[in-house]
Amino acid sequence: MSKKTINAISPTRSENYPEWYQQVIKASDLAENSAVRGCMVIKPWGYSLWENIVRELDDMFKATGVKNAYFPLFIPLSFLEKEAEHVEGFAKECAVVTHHRLTQTEDGTLKPDGQLQEPLIVRPTSETIIGESFSRWVSSYRDLPVLINQWANVVRWEMRTRLFLRTSEFLWQEGHTVHSTAEEAIERTRMMLDVYAKMAEEYLAIPVICGQKTPSERFPGAIDTLCIEAMMQDRKALQAGTSHFLGQNFARASNIKYQSDQEKEEYAWTTSWGVSTRLIGGVIMTHSDDDGLILPPRVASAHVVIMPIIKKEKDRAMVTEYTEQLAKELRDQSYHGRPVRVELDSRNVGSKNWDWIKKGIPVRVEVGPRDIAENSVFVARRDQSHRLRQSIPKDQFVSELPGMLDDIQQQLFQRALDFRTEHSVTIDKKDDFYNLFTSTDENTIHGGFAHSFWCGSPECEAHVKKDLSVTIRCIPFDSSNDSGPCIYCGKTGTGRVIFSKAY
Amino acid sequence: MSKKTINAISPTRSENYPEWYQQVIKASDLAENSAVRGCMVIKPWGYSLWENIVRELDDMFKATGVKNAYFPLFIPLSFLEKEAEHVEGFAKECAVVTHHRLTQTEDGTLKPDGQLQEPLIVRPTSETIIGESFSRWVSSYRDLPVLINQWANVVRWEMRTRLFLRTSEFLWQEGHTVHSTAEEAIERTRMMLDVYAKMAEEYLAIPVICGQKTPSERFPGAIDTLCIEAMMQDRKALQAGTSHFLGQNFARASNIKYQSDQEKEEYAWTTSWGVSTRLIGGVIMTHSDDDGLILPPRVASAHVVIMPIIKKEKDRAMVTEYTEQLAKELRDQSYHGRPVRVELDSRNVGSKNWDWIKKGIPVRVEVGPRDIAENSVFVARRDQSHRLRQSIPKDQFVSELPGMLDDIQQQLFQRALDFRTEHSVTIDKKDDFYNLFTSTDENTIHGGFAHSFWCGSPECEAHVKKDLSVTIRCIPFDSSNDSGPCIYCGKTGTGRVIFSKAY
Repeated sequence: MSKKTINAISPTRSENYPEWYQQVIKASDLAENSAVRGCMVIKPWGYSLWENIVRELDDMFKATGVKNAYFPLFIPLSFLEKEAEHVEGFAKECAVVTHHRLTQTEDGTLKPDGQLQEPLIVRPTSETIIGESFSRWVSSYRDLPVLINQWANVVRWEMRTRLFLRTSEFLWQEGHTVHSTAEEAIERTRMMLDVYAKMAEEYLAIPVICGQKTPSERFPGAIDTLCIEAMMQDRKALQAGTSHFLGQNFARASNIKYQSDQEKEEYAWTTSWGVSTRLIGGVIMTHSDDDGLILPPRVASAHVVIMPIIKKEKDRAMVTEYTEQLAKELRDQSYHGRPVRVELDSRNVGSKNWDWIKKGIPVRVEVGPRDIAENSVFVARRDQSHRLRQSIPKDQFVSELPGMLDDIQQQLFQRALDFRTEHSVTIDKKDDFYNLFTSTDENTIHGGFAHSFWCGSPECEAHVKKDLSVTIRCIPFDSSNDSGPCIYCGKTGTGRVIFSKAY
Repeated sequence: MSKKTINAISPTRSENYPEWYQQVIKASDLAENSAVRGCMVIKPWGYSLWENIVRELDDMFKATGVKNAYFPLFIPLSFLEKEAEHVEGFAKECAVVTHHRLTQTEDGTLKPDGQLQEPLIVRPTSETIIGESFSRWVSSYRDLPVLINQWANVVRWEMRTRLFLRTSEFLWQEGHTVHSTAEEAIERTRMMLDVYAKMAEEYLAIPVICGQKTPSERFPGAIDTLCIEAMMQDRKALQAGTSHFLGQNFARASNIKYQSDQEKEEYAWTTSWGVSTRLIGGVIMTHSDDDGLILPPRVASAHVVIMPIIKKEKDRAMVTEYTEQLAKELRDQSYHGRPVRVELDSRNVGSKNWDWIKKGIPVRVEVGPRDIAENSVFVARRDQSHRLRQSIPKDQFVSELPGMLDDIQQQLFQRALDFRTEHSVTIDKKDDFYNLFTSTDENTIHGGFAHSFWCGSPECEAHVKKDLSVTIRCIPFDSSNDSGPCIYCGKTGTGRVIFSKAY
């Protein structure tokens, strides 16, 4: 019982993982539910995390020749209908605008008025509305490739929502490209998946498996969907990003044609790819512990907090001056090409240290009169026990902070990778497979990623999903070429796939 | 007649200003109308201009302690109704979401289904939905001030739209702050207007007049609306940004209360302030000429284009290597703390030079074999005649480019200021006033800003608006305290106000 009280988050992960997740978000002040069904409010601490992700991704996109643009929020219903699989995939979760004004009724209340001739859909994704522009932008092979990205909000009406992971409105980027050959489009699809993998592993410290979705899990209308899949601490998978090769499906739907260098008119080949605020959910569930959020330094809202310790009024001026100077020195340092982000928390509240632990800031520094006398600072790392604090000469700390942040980043990645390794199993027997996902014995490994064979039939996939709520997360690119019995039907399949429960 | 043919844009400004505006946008590839009524597509060249404006503004906001957050796209109808003037102001132009899915009808078409219990309004502005969060965030004076900004899309249904100036959907930022005293809120209202004036004058090179709106021109629900007003080249005013002191109106509507240090519960004082993609319309109409767009360097999508001139295949390797090296050297230069933005246009098309003139890039550089032999480059400035080109030693050009950009920035501002001065008149006689806004004589000054007295009555304002489509743009902060006859009724008014036609 005494052990329990030392954790800042209640319940703990092992007690109730979904509830722990909500409490970590609340305690760290990342976001909250709004009064609008399924829509979240991203609070400053959460939004700055998103800003950092956006900035890094945006640089990576631009380095591959992509340019940003902006397209309408609304999609005419008739546009959505142009691609049959696409509309089927999104029809059940569309916010539909039907009127363009409000009029006062006789009892003084307002009602929708000015009915639109054609309903407008609030974009759930923008292939069809962007395709309409592309059809006008592209006429010759000389206009290709078109490499466009949009940072935007999208809406997919959800009945059961969870902050960051599944919300009716979310923020994302959607890349859309047009090419003259299938090969080039396929290459782009993979290139952008690699960018996502780099973001996940090198910035978010989330190890991911890169692979291909099975046909039943593809984006509606795509020929091929590639994805990055991560393991959360409850051993469920999180699809963290997808990149789609759309073939000529959307080019046909939107009439994107070009004159080839042989002067033949041909349909173009398109791709689309996106990541969203869901990545923040991934960060929370990969790294955080029973004391709250843990942020990977490269995208952390702030890197370090300085907490002046002032117990006697006579020390105030000296401690304030010293800590402000320290903040300045730290801000002049750079970490991976960006200035070090520093918070200076001068509040006089007892909860200060724990507030920052719960907010997941990578490094905490306490500075009181005694530290100043020794020209040293008292330092704690969020990736280590909150009891582990260390006095370091101030100048040494300033110069070593970027290295310390690097080390924290690396530790978080390694810890997550070890966790995934520990909870990944190679299984060839159906009984073992079913046991893995149904066992409730705390002392055996259960859940996680099962590397198993699959015969390729959608029926086997459907049975497993129905029985266990387990899906094929992906066919990994680095899957070996050996063969074995399909985990459901026993027929031969080639190359192991990854089965898991998922968000 | 021969004079006409040398302009890249047809019609010219003097021939047809509104059509010239559309053609400048088309020729520069900034944006286009979409298939969705009133919604625009912001193309890469236009979007990067917006990105630069966003980055600079965002830094300025943050320097005043503001943090970014994100709130729902949708506002429940009942929220909008909480502030009576507010809902009246926006009811006529609301996009209303009434359904949350699409269902197939018997004839195979899709129709809206899943009617919402309460209609949702696509945000036209977010005071009410953000207020709902603030009411939960604020409980004590210690929680104040709250200083929040949101970068977002908003929708105000427009029947007559014009790219950037008036579109049904546009991009903007909206700042929302909460304070414990009226004084502090008023100070913040003015502080943010000053940020907007700085953005307009120092970055967009648009001279603005800072002042206060008359009651009839206030934001719906505000106690006071401050604004920056600029003069376009057709002598009409453009409201380029507004900052509102909302008093306790929205705090009452959203129940934002705090416990004071006297332990009394009080309604808070709030502000809101915003600028939008409309600023891009202002940039176009302030600086561009009959050859197309002219971009102020500090926000220009790119600063300089390098155009290799290769007439003989044998020169290709040498010219390519030289220009790539030049691009690198220029990118290593910095201009106002940002790296110089360089385009390298290696296309082999005759229209190259004119393409970049029309796109408004501040500096164009041609480099051919002869220039390379002399280690010099051939330079043209967009703020000068396209015939004026100058050979400059390459190293000198590289080191002097930031200074040249500064000079262009300064020239554009001075030119716009001179234009405004030239078309601003002090008028005290009603006949002269009516002549100013009705004269069609090309040889007399007509239109522009009239600095005149106003008695303060909304009726006089309304008459002038009805007769001339002229409104009071603002009561300038620096208006003198002298008195004179109201331009409409002749009764005494104190301090001159600015009358003008406006966008």
